[in-house]
Amino acid sequence: MTKERLYLYDTTLRDGQQTQGVQFSTEEKHAVATLLDDLGVDYIEGGWPGANPTDSAFFDVAPKTRAVMTAFGMTKRAGRSAENDDVLAAVMNAGTPAVCLVGKTHDFHVKTALGISLDENVETITSSVAHIVAQGREALFDAEHYFDGLKSNPDYTLRAAKAAYDAGARWVVLCDTNGGALPHDVRAGVKALIEAGVPGDHIGIHTHNDTENAVANSLVAVAAGARQIQGTLNGLGERCGNANLTTLIPTLLLKEPYASQFETGVTAEALRGLKAASRRLDEILNRVPHKQAAFVGASAFAHKAGLHASAIAKDPSTYEHIDPAAVGNTRIIPMSNQAGQSNLRERLAGMGVTVAKGDPALQRILDRVKDREAQGFSYDTAQASFEVLAREELGLMPQFFEVKRYRVTVERRRNKRNEVVSLSEAVVVVKVDGEKKLSVSESLGPDGSDRGPVNALSRALMKDLGRYADHVDDIRLTDFKVRITNGGTEAVTRVIIDSEDGQGRTWSTVGVSANIVDASFDALVDAIRWKLVRDGAAQEGRG
Amino acid sequence: MTKERLYLYDTTLRDGQQTQGVQFSTEEKHAVATLLDDLGVDYIEGGWPGANPTDSAFFDVAPKTRAVMTAFGMTKRAGRSAENDDVLAAVMNAGTPAVCLVGKTHDFHVKTALGISLDENVETITSSVAHIVAQGREALFDAEHYFDGLKSNPDYTLRAAKAAYDAGARWVVLCDTNGGALPHDVRAGVKALIEAGVPGDHIGIHTHNDTENAVANSLVAVAAGARQIQGTLNGLGERCGNANLTTLIPTLLLKEPYASQFETGVTAEALRGLKAASRRLDEILNRVPHKQAAFVGASAFAHKAGLHASAIAKDPSTYEHIDPAAVGNTRIIPMSNQAGQSNLRERLAGMGVTVAKGDPALQRILDRVKDREAQGFSYDTAQASFEVLAREELGLMPQFFEVKRYRVTVERRRNKRNEVVSLSEAVVVVKVDGEKKLSVSESLGPDGSDRGPVNALSRALMKDLGRYADHVDDIRLTDFKVRITNGGTEAVTRVIIDSEDGQGRTWSTVGVSANIVDASFDALVDAIRWKLVRDGAAQEGRG
Repeated sequence: MTKERLYLYDTTLRDGQQTQGVQFSTEEKHAVATLLDDLGVDYIEGGWPGANPTDSAFFDVAPKTRAVMTAFGMTKRAGRSAENDDVLAAVMNAGTPAVCLVGKTHDFHVKTALGISLDENVETITSSVAHIVAQGREALFDAEHYFDGLKSNPDYTLRAAKAAYDAGARWVVLCDTNGGALPHDVRAGVKALIEAGVPGDHIGIHTHNDTENAVANSLVAVAAGARQIQGTLNGLGERCGNANLTTLIPTLLLKEPYASQFETGVTAEALRGLKAASRRLDEILNRVPHKQAAFVGASAFAHKAGLHASAIAKDPSTYEHIDPAAVGNTRIIPMSNQAGQSNLRERLAGMGVTVAKGDPALQRILDRVKDREAQGFSYDTAQASFEVLAREELGLMPQFFEVKRYRVTVERRRNKRNEVVSLSEAVVVVKVDGEKKLSVSESLGPDGSDRGPVNALSRALMKDLGRYADHVDDIRLTDFKVRITNGGTEAVTRVIIDSEDGQGRTWSTVGVSANIVDASFDALVDAIRWKLVRDGAAQEGRG
Repeated sequence: MTKERLYLYDTTLRDGQQTQGVQFSTEEKHAVATLLDDLGVDYIEGGWPGANPTDSAFFDVAPKTRAVMTAFGMTKRAGRSAENDDVLAAVMNAGTPAVCLVGKTHDFHVKTALGISLDENVETITSSVAHIVAQGREALFDAEHYFDGLKSNPDYTLRAAKAAYDAGARWVVLCDTNGGALPHDVRAGVKALIEAGVPGDHIGIHTHNDTENAVANSLVAVAAGARQIQGTLNGLGERCGNANLTTLIPTLLLKEPYASQFETGVTAEALRGLKAASRRLDEILNRVPHKQAAFVGASAFAHKAGLHASAIAKDPSTYEHIDPAAVGNTRIIPMSNQAGQSNLRERLAGMGVTVAKGDPALQRILDRVKDREAQGFSYDTAQASFEVLAREELGLMPQFFEVKRYRVTVERRRNKRNEVVSLSEAVVVVKVDGEKKLSVSESLGPDGSDRGPVNALSRALMKDLGRYADHVDDIRLTDFKVRITNGGTEAVTRVIIDSEDGQGRTWSTVGVSANIVDASFDALVDAIRWKLVRDGAAQEGRG
């Protein structure tokens, strides 16, 4: 069977820019365009030339892409010709091979927002599209509020949308602008336009996620005959976001009936880079990756339930709808009090520790995890603390060093210039190779300012660990999370510390105490001990 | 037209607990159950009695709810009777009015995961369900991997699912366990079971969001005849999460054809509390609210596009699919000072402070909030700190006392009995009525143990505030939340402190600093100053 071609139109750089808190620079737009091109989308909507300086600058030096670079704008205003509309001229002047114009197809908006007659509006659509075509460009028409218009005045909405096709638009894109359409509305809307005479392979779909149906609405549009999907990477976009291409691409490539019926410009190899592309966009925008994101989230293939984890060990397809490697993701079997022995053995094997089935240490580890979780610990994310605990029970955890005591002081006062200043200072006493070592340190941020007691403690603790100095020198604390939780009957503080080292390894540790400084200190000690084990640091008399 | 009843089954406390990083305490489970009951769901699945200590403890003192409290478990194991299965007995012993058991309906899993014959598996379903019914409880059967099973061996899957109905199950719940089913699969699956003889009003749907179709799959199941929807608040759940009830509830209540066709247990008034319920769950779990969440997200009604914002000013329905107030949310028009000022005056009026339209202090307050939010402050929940800030700009905030300096020390060492002990001690110097007062305090928890530096500081600060002693005596710190956030270019710590007093008033304050102790101290000072204003405490020379 010959596969039909399905076109992917990315609007991360235009509608994605409407996300609250997202503000691309021109350089970032270039980086994202390259990312999208490597992924294999068919169209890249780069922005609205003339609408703001960033978008104009982007098109001034638009990157060379395999994807069709597209400029966005709006249909000419009524009462002037397309040639004489300065807003439209700015869009045309970007010189892109394709131009996409948004226009009204809902009678209410023609009257309320534009204040012109229904006929005048059809004329603006016709002559704007004809103008693009006359200049030898590919024309796309975004039919704004198409699905709402269809409910209000179906004849008019269909007439306006078809006018764009008749004027030569390569694509008429049906926009659920307010995001309120449900799948049955979208199916009916696509079918209505096909019946009105616009072929499905000239119909696109543009949905928003205001009812969490953006992906479903895109899929149902394709099933009804549409052949272009508009969306954004990571589902960025106005309000609740646009249709998420990061979800739609693997769904279309891996799942039936789409996989057998269609082909896109995304190869299986590019698909394996999907998770990396998603993370790269988050990095560019300095956004925290969404853990539960479909396909690419850190939790997307995390099997926390004990029953699931034990079946996964027998055959991953028991609880996975696709192979995580197909999208560049990985399976995670977190430790938690729901976990069983088979889950545990698999997890230990992942750390390079093989334990025989039925080894009594397995039950001791599970019991201790259970106990500690009841005290407020959590090993879901703090995998390194889990490893330290497991190695202790298995007799595979050297002591390395012993903390004898510590003291940390935080002071706030006025300095000689009468400015309020704060200062944190820590003293840590450890015993390494039988020798007692006292270290003292102030807290010092990258700018020399006070960063608080945990920073001071960490600096003092790592200041002199004798023979282990080389191993701890490259440890960097990258994140610090705190939450109050219940340990038994009392509120306790749980601290999770993320660390990384010079080799690019990252690991997380946990500490719990009623005293936040104590909890942080324990997480710090675990972080160092994990690093020493992983580095294979030799211990006196054992190493 | 009589509306048909649609039942909502919440599994936040069971499947929601499978979210990576989520670990409810028993107290938190009780708080969430109350939240769900107030919202109006029909069933609350409280957990799996016997599977872990938290779930068992939850059912030991399960809260009285209007919703049907349900215990979760699995069908009895093969080769023993339902009466003699200890795992099932633990579930039954929770004594809930309803019991939901998960069982296999996919031939592959019967063979791979259970290793029993297909007939034996049907027998376990039949006798487990019959056992629940015989004990006078309502029985629900979660048909695991129903949609995958239907593709592999449709006759067997239908036979297994129908066996539960025939044995007396009130609901046969079709589970898309791996999250891979798409809407067309779900429609076909529901129809097939109805054709096999199970009436739609005995069919439930349980979906996961692995392709972002959990909501769409739930809706299509209802359209195909199912009458129970399982889901979680905020879409918590294994891997990518379960069907999001926070989205499904407003969709079913506000959007057609669902709104006309069905009724649920959620009232219009409860729906107006939806955003608050969503936030409350995030607070309990100390999760960052998802800004782009459908209906309840902070961005869900934020209109960033200039064209949208100007049309919204004419008529909100131009770019909103529902009225945000219906779900307790609010419209945001960034950069609209007009809207900002009227919102602000409303908020001040709520604190009992009347400010004239156009008062220049209004703009100063908005600017300062903006500045401080850029530094990492957040006034969404910390209303008391917002009130202190606003009163300062309005000249309505007495100073009361001045903090000259403080010092807090945390020490961990071994005591004479060689036990590890920690000790926190704080010295605070304040000036009240021109008099300098030095106070020192150790940290002391209810059981006499160390509670850390913030506890010590709070005790020292409130120890001697001169004439204000009576006002601060009844302040109790009830919660303390810490989050690392971005303040300008650097990570800072945001601390939010919840307080209450003897009159039952509760209030929240915020502090931000790179130093967690400093941030906590500032939040403490705000908490005391708010209390003094609200108590109308007289200040020397002004009172």
